[in-house]
Amino acid sequence: MKNVFEFLHLSRPRHLEDLLAFLRIPSISAQAAYRPDIERAADFLCDELKDLGLTVEKITGEGNPLVYAQTEIDPSRPTILIYGHYDVQPVDPEELWNSPPFEPLVKDGIIYARGASDDKGQLYAHVKAVEAFVRTGTPLPVNVKFLIEGEEEKGGDSVYEYTEKNPAKLACDAVLVSDTSLYNEDTPAITFSLRGMCYTEILVDGPGQDLHSGSFGGTVRNPGNAIAAIVASLHDGNGRVTVPGFYDDVVELDAEGRAEFDRLGYGEAELVRDTGSPASFGEANYSTLERMWVRPTCDVNGLWSGYIGEGGKTIIPSKAGAKVSMRLVPNQDPDKIARAFTDHVNAVAPSGVKVEVKVLHNAKPVLVPRDSAMMQAGLRALETGFGKKALFVGEGGSIPITGTFQACLKVPVIMLGYGLPNDNIHSPNEKFHLDNYYNGIRTSVAFFDEASRLTRK
Amino acid sequence: MKNVFEFLHLSRPRHLEDLLAFLRIPSISAQAAYRPDIERAADFLCDELKDLGLTVEKITGEGNPLVYAQTEIDPSRPTILIYGHYDVQPVDPEELWNSPPFEPLVKDGIIYARGASDDKGQLYAHVKAVEAFVRTGTPLPVNVKFLIEGEEEKGGDSVYEYTEKNPAKLACDAVLVSDTSLYNEDTPAITFSLRGMCYTEILVDGPGQDLHSGSFGGTVRNPGNAIAAIVASLHDGNGRVTVPGFYDDVVELDAEGRAEFDRLGYGEAELVRDTGSPASFGEANYSTLERMWVRPTCDVNGLWSGYIGEGGKTIIPSKAGAKVSMRLVPNQDPDKIARAFTDHVNAVAPSGVKVEVKVLHNAKPVLVPRDSAMMQAGLRALETGFGKKALFVGEGGSIPITGTFQACLKVPVIMLGYGLPNDNIHSPNEKFHLDNYYNGIRTSVAFFDEASRLTRK
Repeated sequence: MKNVFEFLHLSRPRHLEDLLAFLRIPSISAQAAYRPDIERAADFLCDELKDLGLTVEKITGEGNPLVYAQTEIDPSRPTILIYGHYDVQPVDPEELWNSPPFEPLVKDGIIYARGASDDKGQLYAHVKAVEAFVRTGTPLPVNVKFLIEGEEEKGGDSVYEYTEKNPAKLACDAVLVSDTSLYNEDTPAITFSLRGMCYTEILVDGPGQDLHSGSFGGTVRNPGNAIAAIVASLHDGNGRVTVPGFYDDVVELDAEGRAEFDRLGYGEAELVRDTGSPASFGEANYSTLERMWVRPTCDVNGLWSGYIGEGGKTIIPSKAGAKVSMRLVPNQDPDKIARAFTDHVNAVAPSGVKVEVKVLHNAKPVLVPRDSAMMQAGLRALETGFGKKALFVGEGGSIPITGTFQACLKVPVIMLGYGLPNDNIHSPNEKFHLDNYYNGIRTSVAFFDEASRLTRK
Repeated sequence: MKNVFEFLHLSRPRHLEDLLAFLRIPSISAQAAYRPDIERAADFLCDELKDLGLTVEKITGEGNPLVYAQTEIDPSRPTILIYGHYDVQPVDPEELWNSPPFEPLVKDGIIYARGASDDKGQLYAHVKAVEAFVRTGTPLPVNVKFLIEGEEEKGGDSVYEYTEKNPAKLACDAVLVSDTSLYNEDTPAITFSLRGMCYTEILVDGPGQDLHSGSFGGTVRNPGNAIAAIVASLHDGNGRVTVPGFYDDVVELDAEGRAEFDRLGYGEAELVRDTGSPASFGEANYSTLERMWVRPTCDVNGLWSGYIGEGGKTIIPSKAGAKVSMRLVPNQDPDKIARAFTDHVNAVAPSGVKVEVKVLHNAKPVLVPRDSAMMQAGLRALETGFGKKALFVGEGGSIPITGTFQACLKVPVIMLGYGLPNDNIHSPNEKFHLDNYYNGIRTSVAFFDEASRLTRK
């Protein structure tokens, strides 16, 4: 492998130039005007993967194209499926960018461009790892399959449908996803848990129109008071969710996991610094990182009723509403939670108003057991690639496709994140650190090597 | 008195013409552009009252002019102070008016114009009553004082300050206020109780900015959940306000009052019809009219937090707020209630957020004992004027100046309302029924007569 790593080192200027070319394509999936650039980004990947000798398919359907590619399959070697997305977030508010989002700026070892970290830079590191084997004439130690989509940032279905319909074609020993981040600049990490989601909206209907609060106050149920009572009923005084059955399927973190979280040393002080909140608060008897990564939540995302302008207006509002979402953890089932939540709200709904619950969207939580050979190989690869001790970490957010890979392919999904938590993904001035790009390519190479030594299952 | 009533009947066309002239003046107090019209409206009244032989003062200060006028004072006769306001509400949304708001339209016995019912038409009825005595050469049976303001619709202080500073000048045996309404088209009424008000705003501050609900959900107190908990803590399950001490000073309605309310036959069905609410709801063991008129309330007027647009946004909001107002009844003291409310909110305020209570405004509740000779005289005058059985009724809203008259002048404030509940005051197409105008003038004449027969106190 020495020659491959040497090749990587010498190729850095070209690796940068090639990534900048990919970043110049404004492949924004949420805005129809960029549809031609979506095609260009998919073609960019197809062309490069073809040049590397892979068999490539541009899969077109109702949505944006999927790029599928594979090396020649040697059944004696493990197979790694690499997932990523070539589409990017919109750029507004564009006036807050310090340089044009699609004219990448490289400054002090950092690339500034939309998509640099999410997800072009991370995805492309894997392409460059494959390239290094091909260009040095070193046999790839594993079979590699790519499945790259163009609808991640707009929540499209294509990759889900394709995965569900083609489990044999996508068969592999592990899925590699690089769409997360290091724990911090000095600590590479594998994300082993993702929270799921059940996002709801509660609507309360009272009087036919806003009423004068003098004339009618005290005689009808006030929807504003009603929504407050409903939302307040969702927790007890210890921050625990009171929806019956909510915790039934929650997997408790084991002692090892707790100890690992504790070693990260992230507590009250760090949380107050990062959030600007006056203090931490959460479920009793759980640490900050447990609350953040492996405990389920129930949070108001929005709340409204009546008059919210300046000064006073003496009305009984005719309506009120709340957006309430739950972050879920293994093995909570979003559909079951949605039913339990709806039942609870209906049970506590006050008389004298009409209450309706809408479920806006669901995502399954993901837990990847840390003790599999592939996960351990991932950890070693990170340590080789970055030259630093690597950790398993949780993540409070959701990456829904990982749940689908787990369910359909039944292999570990290894989230080797090459970004940083402050890369401004989805914000102006998105960035990606060159060191993380180069070390990411090294990590991918090391992972192929580590994986190849594992016995085929 | 017969000649006076005959004169009224014959003068109807002129009474209408004169009122229309008054209504053509767009004396909107809330909008500075109409300041010259405010002066014109005040002058209109000054000129007419001078013509009738009264001593008139146009009192100018920092605010809009007050019009004060009085007949020659005969100490052997009772004195009646008449209050009203010549300013009117703004007209927007003007496009919803079926005829121009300051070009009065008379159609099917109804005048359509801004200010027709609130309060020019009602106020002017008293002027025309005085006129009838003067023009027929009939000695006025009572001394009459007018105090007419031009800031009622914008909440100005002038009339309050003047009343507080000049109780001797305004000394009287009863105050007559016509700024309310009949109970319904067939039932003239005196309003004997008005609810007061304590209007507050609760502000909750949490994280320094909106946080990603995946990254931080479960680790900080969510201001949206916090405001819901605070608002929910304001009532128990029976619709009773839980603020400690809230009911301490509440005067219970006596059996006679209850019986009188019950006779009005306003219950669940009527409330559902008038409000469009699915059902009635309120404090247990009180009837709808008791809840509406003589029981205190605590209502959300507005509620806000986080994202309230379409679809979902996964944030922990950094702030939340609620406008919460309490309608008060005798003998609740708004200042004392404001303190009790603030103490309660601070006591239940969850940890991990900053909670602040602002008191936006206060108004005292008013109760006028129904058994005084002057109140009984008012009832008889209404029956004479309208030819129908009259009632005492409560009112859920507030008319703050009546509390000041009670406190400073220590006489009954007799609210003889000539409007109708559906006169669209403060809305497009404000109206005033000609019958109520003419019968209102008759009532004023009858009241002067009734009052003159009472022994001076």
